[in-house]
Amino acid sequence: MPWPQEITSNSSDFMITPAFNVFIDGEVATSSRIYKAATRFIRYMTDKSGVFVIEGFANTKNSKAASASLRIHYEEKAEVAMGIDESYTLTVTKEGIEINSKTDVGAMHGLSSLLQLIKVKEGAYVFSGVVIKDEPRFVWRGLMMDVARHFMPVEVVKRNLEAMALVKLNVFHWHLSDDQGFRVETKTLPELYQLASDGQYYTQEQIKDIVKFADDRGIRVVPEFDVPGHGTAFLTAYPELGSKKDMTYSLERYAGIFDPTLDPTNEKTYVFLDKLFKEVAPLFPDIYFHIGGDENEGKHWNENERIQQFMKDNNLNDNHELQTYFNIKLEKILAKYNKSLMGWEEIMTENMPKTALIHSWRGINEGVEPGQSLVDAVKNGYQTILSNGYYIDLLLPVEDHYLVDPMPGVSLTEEERNRILGGEATMWSELVTPLTVDTRIWPRTAAIAERFWSAKEVRDVESMFTRMNTVSQFLELAGVQHIKSQAYIFRNIANYQDTHALRTLSQISEPFKIYTRNAGGTQYKTYAPYTLFADACTVNAASVRPFRKAVNQYVLHQDSSSKEFMMTDLKKWQQVDKQLSVIEDQAPLVTKIRPYSKRVSSIATLMISGLQEAKLTKTQLKELEELISTKEDPELNLDVELAISKELLQLAAFLTK
Amino acid sequence: MPWPQEITSNSSDFMITPAFNVFIDGEVATSSRIYKAATRFIRYMTDKSGVFVIEGFANTKNSKAASASLRIHYEEKAEVAMGIDESYTLTVTKEGIEINSKTDVGAMHGLSSLLQLIKVKEGAYVFSGVVIKDEPRFVWRGLMMDVARHFMPVEVVKRNLEAMALVKLNVFHWHLSDDQGFRVETKTLPELYQLASDGQYYTQEQIKDIVKFADDRGIRVVPEFDVPGHGTAFLTAYPELGSKKDMTYSLERYAGIFDPTLDPTNEKTYVFLDKLFKEVAPLFPDIYFHIGGDENEGKHWNENERIQQFMKDNNLNDNHELQTYFNIKLEKILAKYNKSLMGWEEIMTENMPKTALIHSWRGINEGVEPGQSLVDAVKNGYQTILSNGYYIDLLLPVEDHYLVDPMPGVSLTEEERNRILGGEATMWSELVTPLTVDTRIWPRTAAIAERFWSAKEVRDVESMFTRMNTVSQFLELAGVQHIKSQAYIFRNIANYQDTHALRTLSQISEPFKIYTRNAGGTQYKTYAPYTLFADACTVNAASVRPFRKAVNQYVLHQDSSSKEFMMTDLKKWQQVDKQLSVIEDQAPLVTKIRPYSKRVSSIATLMISGLQEAKLTKTQLKELEELISTKEDPELNLDVELAISKELLQLAAFLTK
Repeated sequence: MPWPQEITSNSSDFMITPAFNVFIDGEVATSSRIYKAATRFIRYMTDKSGVFVIEGFANTKNSKAASASLRIHYEEKAEVAMGIDESYTLTVTKEGIEINSKTDVGAMHGLSSLLQLIKVKEGAYVFSGVVIKDEPRFVWRGLMMDVARHFMPVEVVKRNLEAMALVKLNVFHWHLSDDQGFRVETKTLPELYQLASDGQYYTQEQIKDIVKFADDRGIRVVPEFDVPGHGTAFLTAYPELGSKKDMTYSLERYAGIFDPTLDPTNEKTYVFLDKLFKEVAPLFPDIYFHIGGDENEGKHWNENERIQQFMKDNNLNDNHELQTYFNIKLEKILAKYNKSLMGWEEIMTENMPKTALIHSWRGINEGVEPGQSLVDAVKNGYQTILSNGYYIDLLLPVEDHYLVDPMPGVSLTEEERNRILGGEATMWSELVTPLTVDTRIWPRTAAIAERFWSAKEVRDVESMFTRMNTVSQFLELAGVQHIKSQAYIFRNIANYQDTHALRTLSQISEPFKIYTRNAGGTQYKTYAPYTLFADACTVNAASVRPFRKAVNQYVLHQDSSSKEFMMTDLKKWQQVDKQLSVIEDQAPLVTKIRPYSKRVSSIATLMISGLQEAKLTKTQLKELEELISTKEDPELNLDVELAISKELLQLAAFLTK
Repeated sequence: MPWPQEITSNSSDFMITPAFNVFIDGEVATSSRIYKAATRFIRYMTDKSGVFVIEGFANTKNSKAASASLRIHYEEKAEVAMGIDESYTLTVTKEGIEINSKTDVGAMHGLSSLLQLIKVKEGAYVFSGVVIKDEPRFVWRGLMMDVARHFMPVEVVKRNLEAMALVKLNVFHWHLSDDQGFRVETKTLPELYQLASDGQYYTQEQIKDIVKFADDRGIRVVPEFDVPGHGTAFLTAYPELGSKKDMTYSLERYAGIFDPTLDPTNEKTYVFLDKLFKEVAPLFPDIYFHIGGDENEGKHWNENERIQQFMKDNNLNDNHELQTYFNIKLEKILAKYNKSLMGWEEIMTENMPKTALIHSWRGINEGVEPGQSLVDAVKNGYQTILSNGYYIDLLLPVEDHYLVDPMPGVSLTEEERNRILGGEATMWSELVTPLTVDTRIWPRTAAIAERFWSAKEVRDVESMFTRMNTVSQFLELAGVQHIKSQAYIFRNIANYQDTHALRTLSQISEPFKIYTRNAGGTQYKTYAPYTLFADACTVNAASVRPFRKAVNQYVLHQDSSSKEFMMTDLKKWQQVDKQLSVIEDQAPLVTKIRPYSKRVSSIATLMISGLQEAKLTKTQLKELEELISTKEDPELNLDVELAISKELLQLAAFLTK
């Protein structure tokens, strides 16, 4: 995963043995990108297989390329930038493995594919015999990480970059400022990080370190400094740049859309941004620089007479035109530092220069046609990328994201189609911390990565699920904490008693979707706990799909195997409440889960009886419906939903017939 | 843990509620050490308790100290250095919590103690009501981490520093160079990291970042650059400084003691070290600078005629005197950069200046009286610290370390006793990687930390075990990966099938001790796997002590409760082999465990029968002894030993009587 453009399997698998070694044609520096990638590859392969590899690398003085287990040949070292050649070919036979590519970045993609070819055959780990010819469908395959709402330390960013490389994502979009914090050390404007970060920011050396780490993996880094809205952090440090007079700004502790906005009519705003961009631009070698530009409702502009007068004086008819005035000035500033401007779709107004890159994001939640701005952008002559449909923080089922294509269904000219560069998954951080963020990004983002890399026709959801479960294991091998963190949250809830019941319950429970978890944005603040049952639950809860299959089969055939499968599940679920009651005394967080586990156990008891009798009475059905519909009971307040409700009702309806 | 000098419990516990807040008397900067420590404290408390804390900090504008839940008062900000005041008092009653201290470092120790007072009472998390008056017994309470043999990235160091702070350790001794690598970016001598690190080194900014991170936790950082022995990395980069002519040096891939040694008769060696120390000394603000000096057998000196002639010309009678000549020159160089020299005990020779700090480490394994050098040092007028007895990489039971006291049993004058500054646990990294290092350091080092901090009389092993198990949970709360990593290794071995049997088996299995795992140092090289069953097993395997108690009780009383306890255990162990056989087909690493699990299951079957009959025949006893003694069978080759052998034989002997 992502599925290659061309793949042919053969039965000529390559066995992993202690003699395994790598030969990199023409490479001498052990500090080169490809050499380091090969080093990581060998470590992963060794850790996975338990094979005592003797040397790892072929000694170029004594041996020839032909005798090495894995031979890598590439033509040139790439400068990591948009549109470089990322293609590669990979051949595995029992005699050896070969990767060929134009660039070292392509060769690294070959290594990512090769790692995922590890499988068990006759009691040993082998690389599956294949011939792969591969290249990406889109040049822009991104993951955005919001480090403003909850700060993500260096190691969190790094392990996610490593995971991105494994699934061939190539753009790290780094959302570095928002109402809740400004996260970059700024020497010319020190108040920004001193007053508006709670001490949680990246030093410039840490940023360089991360950019280098990304570059070593063929990943571009696009920074975002969100202006003029989402500006509370800026104005906490520099209130004189605000649009509202005499306001005391302080870092926002809640989630939501807020009013503090930079004043685009104040020349000092541009002096300030010029100073900021001048200092930070060199930290990020990529040509693109994201200025945000989203969700500015202009309330403070409307309220400010001086701003209103300025608009009249300059023939700016509405806030959109004022923001365009602002954006155009920003574009000129950025041009001085050799940066191209990109921004969220709101920057696309009539007079916006066509050089801007439009980041399409709005959809049904915002009351507009999903991805409409993408079509508008290419028709208006802008290049664009899509994030609507890839908002992984909505906690929607992975298949919902997987089936969204960056290329819209409407008719476009080839020129217009070429302006669609790709897409980005977005990880907004209102409800995640360094502890839980990996569980929200992975493994789902691997499916989105496949959408960006693989052919349009690759859309088989069953196959996607199977492969996503496999890639999830390789992600853990590469250091992602998604599985480890979940297990830890269970331990914490159980206060280090038996976690078995919590795990079972989580496998049929999913966290509230589409921002309903933190309705009104008022429950969760900076010091809210993110170690609750909802934090341990994940989208696509593990038991749901197998149970659904069994229900479907039973409704069709009433066969004993599907019945037995359901009974086993139901009996497990029936026990959960009793098991939790045993540990509750020493685990206060379990007490909050008990009303829910009681309900689940009651439901299971009812369904077991129905299945045994092959019949549910009308009274039982009503009882079941009530048990299921009470999920919004405020007493429960767990921020999770029972993910098998539909399946239970389907089965109950059948049994009541 | 560590147990305070004075502690009085009361029943007036403080309840954790959403209104919890902290007031730091006189502190305004949110970037101050104590403010950041309080921020971490609140996060841990919130994560642990699941309480939705509203604000966290008392608003100093609106509220008074008296109304805050936790009130911190300290007199002055400390410069982190040896001998600063680390005392504090902590009072918890149901009305509120108070920490008072001379320095902010003392106040942070108070926070570490407070965190460990979280407990469950009547279905809620509370802070236990206590009055604590506390200060350390020793000023030097260290953990050494070897990042040369296996490199440990920044995040590994940081999470271990955070753990150190939790158990009040205050010296991080950073072993930065050895035969296997040189781990520091050096701008004046770039070949060191470019040619002798495999690309695995800290940039200078990363070092500053770590030193700051440690300083924020009241922890001193003492760097070690090991010379003149353990010098392969130096000589890989600068072979002209070696003691053997025309030798080609290259980074060592094995573990052991090697011959490459700097040439102390070559003036260029001192020019080189002066350049190195001049550049790196400012990175480390602490006054002490560790020059290693250990395990130099001088073989290359003996073989070099020029060196032999130099010794004659300078009246240096043996290699010790030559090394002293070298050390004295180093001391002068270091003095230029305001550093005091410290080194392993071998530097203590007749002419060594008394200003040097002696690091005592040798013992039975090296054929000398354990800690003898400590006594010699103080009698000779040197200050000293003890590491013998605290070699956690030996994988000895924690009680072995816990009961070693840095103050020797021999009679010393008060002046001599005062020269004993404390001790250091040492984590040599021959057989650990970033994945497993936490499992080797923690929680055992918490017990050693108690030895360095608490009163000499605190030596109750039962109490230590109970409290260590609790502190282990707080260590995980603070980010230590010891529990998570173990679970991951099980998943990897099982290839993501059921890990239950592996866990059960690990609870009676311990990794080979005292370096026997890697006998001869030839099995494990750079690319060896460190994800094997031995890596998942830990010292003090969890089921051993409870089983031992049951055996002891049964032998005395033949009561049914101890019999039932043993039967439950034995039946679990009996099942292990069968359970592993189920997953073996898809998990090649399980195949290697099967001979061992078969043996364990056979042993369990035999003992079950013996217990049921309350009798073992002589034949059965012999069979058992054979099963147990085959643990060295090379076919097994698992590098683990059955940790309940003694207990089984004790029970069997009783049953055979």
